[in-house]
Amino acid sequence: MPDPKLLVLFPTPANAGGSGAVPSIVIEHVNEEFTSVCPVTGHPDFGTITLRYAPGAGGCVELKSLKLYYQSFRNEGIYYEAVTGRIRADLAEALKPAWMQVITNWRGRGGIRSVVRADFGPVPTNYLGQ
Amino acid sequence: MPDPKLLVLFPTPANAGGSGAVPSIVIEHVNEEFTSVCPVTGHPDFGTITLRYAPGAGGCVELKSLKLYYQSFRNEGIYYEAVTGRIRADLAEALKPAWMQVITNWRGRGGIRSVVRADFGPVPTNYLGQ
Amino acid sequence: MPDPKLLVLFPTPANAGGSGAVPSIVIEHVNEEFTSVCPVTGHPDFGTITLRYAPGAGGCVELKSLKLYYQSFRNEGIYYEAVTGRIRADLAEALKPAWMQVITNWRGRGGIRSVVRADFGPVPTNYLGQ
Amino acid sequence: MPDPKLLVLFPTPANAGGSGAVPSIVIEHVNEEFTSVCPVTGHPDFGTITLRYAPGAGGCVELKSLKLYYQSFRNEGIYYEAVTGRIRADLAEALKPAWMQVITNWRGRGGIRSVVRADFGPVPTNYLGQ
Amino acid sequence: MPDPKLLVLFPTPANAGGSGAVPSIVIEHVNEEFTSVCPVTGHPDFGTITLRYAPGAGGCVELKSLKLYYQSFRNEGIYYEAVTGRIRADLAEALKPAWMQVITNWRGRGGIRSVVRADFGPVPTNYLGQ
Amino acid sequence: MPDPKLLVLFPTPANAGGSGAVPSIVIEHVNEEFTSVCPVTGHPDFGTITLRYAPGAGGCVELKSLKLYYQSFRNEGIYYEAVTGRIRADLAEALKPAWMQVITNWRGRGGIRSVVRADFGPVPTNYLGQ
Amino acid sequence: MPDPKLLVLFPTPANAGGSGAVPSIVIEHVNEEFTSVCPVTGHPDFGTITLRYAPGAGGCVELKSLKLYYQSFRNEGIYYEAVTGRIRADLAEALKPAWMQVITNWRGRGGIRSVVRADFGPVPTNYLGQ
Amino acid sequence: MPDPKLLVLFPTPANAGGSGAVPSIVIEHVNEEFTSVCPVTGHPDFGTITLRYAPGAGGCVELKSLKLYYQSFRNEGIYYEAVTGRIRADLAEALKPAWMQVITNWRGRGGIRSVVRADFGPVPTNYLGQ
Amino acid sequence: MPDPKLLVLFPTPANAGGSGAVPSIVIEHVNEEFTSVCPVTGHPDFGTITLRYAPGAGGCVELKSLKLYYQSFRNEGIYYEAVTGRIRADLAEALKPAWMQVITNWRGRGGIRSVVRADFGPVPTNYLGQ
Amino acid sequence: MPDPKLLVLFPTPANAGGSGAVPSIVIEHVNEEFTSVCPVTGHPDFGTITLRYAPGAGGCVELKSLKLYYQSFRNEGIYYEAVTGRIRADLAEALKPAWMQVITNWRGRGGIRSVVRADFGPVPTNYLGQ
Repeated sequence: MPDPKLLVLFPTPANAGGSGAVPSIVIEHVNEEFTSVCPVTGHPDFGTITLRYAPGAGGCVELKSLKLYYQSFRNEGIYYEAVTGRIRADLAEALKPAWMQVITNWRGRGGIRSVVRADFGPVPTNYLGQ
Repeated sequence: MPDPKLLVLFPTPANAGGSGAVPSIVIEHVNEEFTSVCPVTGHPDFGTITLRYAPGAGGCVELKSLKLYYQSFRNEGIYYEAVTGRIRADLAEALKPAWMQVITNWRGRGGIRSVVRADFGPVPTNYLGQ
Repeated sequence: MPDPKLLVLFPTPANAGGSGAVPSIVIEHVNEEFTSVCPVTGHPDFGTITLRYAPGAGGCVELKSLKLYYQSFRNEGIYYEAVTGRIRADLAEALKPAWMQVITNWRGRGGIRSVVRADFGPVPTNYLGQ
Repeated sequence: MPDPKLLVLFPTPANAGGSGAVPSIVIEHVNEEFTSVCPVTGHPDFGTITLRYAPGAGGCVELKSLKLYYQSFRNEGIYYEAVTGRIRADLAEALKPAWMQVITNWRGRGGIRSVVRADFGPVPTNYLGQ
Repeated sequence: MPDPKLLVLFPTPANAGGSGAVPSIVIEHVNEEFTSVCPVTGHPDFGTITLRYAPGAGGCVELKSLKLYYQSFRNEGIYYEAVTGRIRADLAEALKPAWMQVITNWRGRGGIRSVVRADFGPVPTNYLGQ
Repeated sequence: MPDPKLLVLFPTPANAGGSGAVPSIVIEHVNEEFTSVCPVTGHPDFGTITLRYAPGAGGCVELKSLKLYYQSFRNEGIYYEAVTGRIRADLAEALKPAWMQVITNWRGRGGIRSVVRADFGPVPTNYLGQ
Repeated sequence: MPDPKLLVLFPTPANAGGSGAVPSIVIEHVNEEFTSVCPVTGHPDFGTITLRYAPGAGGCVELKSLKLYYQSFRNEGIYYEAVTGRIRADLAEALKPAWMQVITNWRGRGGIRSVVRADFGPVPTNYLGQ
Repeated sequence: MPDPKLLVLFPTPANAGGSGAVPSIVIEHVNEEFTSVCPVTGHPDFGTITLRYAPGAGGCVELKSLKLYYQSFRNEGIYYEAVTGRIRADLAEALKPAWMQVITNWRGRGGIRSVVRADFGPVPTNYLGQ
Repeated sequence: MPDPKLLVLFPTPANAGGSGAVPSIVIEHVNEEFTSVCPVTGHPDFGTITLRYAPGAGGCVELKSLKLYYQSFRNEGIYYEAVTGRIRADLAEALKPAWMQVITNWRGRGGIRSVVRADFGPVPTNYLGQ
Repeated sequence: MPDPKLLVLFPTPANAGGSGAVPSIVIEHVNEEFTSVCPVTGHPDFGTITLRYAPGAGGCVELKSLKLYYQSFRNEGIYYEAVTGRIRADLAEALKPAWMQVITNWRGRGGIRSVVRADFGPVPTNYLGQ
């Protein structure tokens, strides 16, 4: 069962402070080993989760804790859109980021492959069109 | 025969709401197994259909129903431009999306390959140049 | 000899109408089998021609006629820049497009490969940077 | 131990001066052979460091000295974010660049690969969206 | 020894005239066979030179003459930054272009590969972010 | 319905005769636009058909007739293995080749993609391991 | 728990019979969505399973049943080598193939990625070196 | 009209002599710019011609003469198989090679792309399976 | 300092036994994160180590212990050829494999990249030409 | 001027001895930065030189000396075939290898790119077909 309490945070490093419209530092974690279960058919879904954020009040997410949080979806029956929305909600709550993107990229089902992208906060000027 | 009544909708998930110029969630479905028939020669055409949209009043399109809707073009004699316009019209009618793109990408005929792109609604700021 | 009279047009499909700064539909035809002749050396040149346009008053260009028009350059002695300018001029005259790009991409000569791009009309907002 | 004193500078070439919002010259060095050590597990980390900058008051960094500076991280226990921030701080101090980006791209750990990007100074107009 | 007198120009083709902020025609020549010599070690450097420009008062550069001009660097001891600046200066002097980019892309030395980009004149709106 | 009577043959060109263990000529036709229907679910299957053969008593297969023969499977409900066996049987009957391979390569279903290969006659020495 | 009773067989199609050293038909199924669990750490492993076989006394394996059989490893704690051996044993028992290969290809752990290949029966002459 | 009299030969270099079953030297020329005309439709065909040979009594073929020989097919109406056989016949007559392969690789027509390979003489042991 | 005592072995799984010329099971571990030091210049070398073996009397090597063994070369001054020979010697001593290959693939130095391959024992028939 | 006296040798490492038909160790050096001059036109040629050998009585070639030897061709007017034969002769004389391959791979001239391969000594069984 998805469990945001698994997320561990650490303060943004001192030399990564910033100001103005361009974020000082942007962090991206790409997990190519995500799996959950289709709530209708019970078959597993496989995808890649990309998290991209500019740290805010909550600081940074620790990498191993992020992995364990993602693993907590392993046997959860949940739709693509809900996975994406849930991850955004949990991470936004924890990180309070200046900006965040969650992109879930799913292998094909019935000949159709899907991508769901959820943004949080204003896209920095230098990340437009990405 | 293309049949939009095959399309099944579901409400946008609660945690995917948004506000302002940046859409809260954008969904992309890529169908690499599209085929219709050339109305002039009777030979089959093969293409990839990319649908990208920010959900609006009509909510989201269910994936299997989308597949069946696409399959309804299988033995239809129809031009590239008309396929693209038809899909945009049917899906815009059903989804009432905040923004939508339909991109059809066709394998070569006589040494020329073609792409047709139809937009619906204003392109969100963070999707310009894509 | 390049012959624009080979070009056949058809009206833009009714469901592809648009309004405002974003074109309703954009069509791209990529011909990877273009050849003409170098006017200086007499050796053949080989290239790929990309045509991208938003239909205007002249409607759309029929695919087979476009192929025959391109084939009419086969034994013409003509420079890269002139091929590009000629295609733009002929197609702009016929199509009267809202926007058009002609990109010619040439295989190497003497270790240098070349690309020539000619624009016609204002680039739509959602095609900037492409 | 990371040692910025290893950095050697040289004046920006005379023919590379510029003015206004577009930098006259932008230099990019990509080091695909970076390694440091994880401060928690003691296992080595491997990454690619991309430095991109428009020269400013400090001039340009000499290539071999940059390589030696990067090698000084070889046996340092240090997090991804701190590597990135440290390199930005050291190079900004030395180069006083008009603009600078440091992008560190790390091979996967536990199925997750990471990218950290730190900007310094306003992104030039012609580098937005990159 | 780099010799700009090798450059031969020809008038921009009549059908390639333009007006306003979008250049009428943009020409790109990519030379993947550039070599010069490192002024410090005496070892050869190998790179790719990309020239991109919108023709101005000087017209267009003839392709074979450009190749001979590039070959005149073959046994010259010269740094990456100076090669780039020199090519920009020589070509800007000859072509008087509306806009020009020179991008030199160098194979690795000591595990680091480099790119130097020099702009001349205002980047056209439709080439931003490229 | 698969219809081998669509196949048209022509005599092997005179300058393509051979002798001994190495075939004089080998012909390969790759059709990336094959579709049939799953006999169980009724959903379309999409695949690529590779035919490779050394001509024998029946001569060569004419290309357009081969295309029409493949199109005759379009609405046939038939398994991967049977498609492959059927094509081998029909073509072996018609061509009486010295050697033949039929390789059908299918897009994924349920996360599994498949390849079926059927050989006919002894593999020539110089095609082993391919 | 791995469950070979999930495997469903069907007779090899009549037109796929063969004789001699070259198998009449070879079938390959590639499952890119395999996951099991590391018996030591409890973390999930992800891999691709390739099954290649020439049908024998047991006939062919039905595709959906193969998928379900693979899914039965989802929560099993088992090593790479044992997964590979187990799949070979179960499928050889069921299929009694003339020849079979099972290749498991695992995503990296600790910077090392692995491939395990298990053969069953003599490799056909025309598959040597593959 | 294909004209083998265009072929110019030169003696195999002295340091390229050999003995026994392994040829001393093997030369490969790949021409990616071949075009001829379909004898039925009159439309141009485009392909890549690969010539691979171990020099024999006739020595080696001069590169520019080979290019001119290939160009002599430009406006010839001729089938794929006949192009391949004709090139093999002309070159075998001129070169009297110890071994030769001619591989013609054609861009798609009607969704089918083709490769024709003609061998001459015994394949050397170290080129089997290529 | 390279330390073979770090290597931990485990018995080959029971279901992976074999007989005859074709090994029952072949295991491959690819480590893309190898680094040692050039004994002459003191600069780090970076490479990929591929180990491929058919288990023999010593059984199999445990993956994490293999990683630690490779890490023990991190600050060792040692040539490419000696790294390769040393790894073969240490692993052959420990594993007593039926067959083994060690392939070291090094990033470029001075524009030259290198591969060293060391075999141990007779190559199995089905791995020739790989 | 090509100068084999630049070649420096060192003894094959003790742990790289072998016996029988399979060489104990095979070394490959790939130089992607080779240039010489066309003896007819005076234009530079660019290519990649691959050297692959099993060490014999002369031992191994030192990497930096090999680079300098290759650089001695920089301003030499010499044909592709002669470059290849010359390198084979010089290296065979110096190395007295058990087996050697020299493969020169040249960028295109006039739309034709070329590969020349020269073998020395019997190809080891496990390198056939490569």
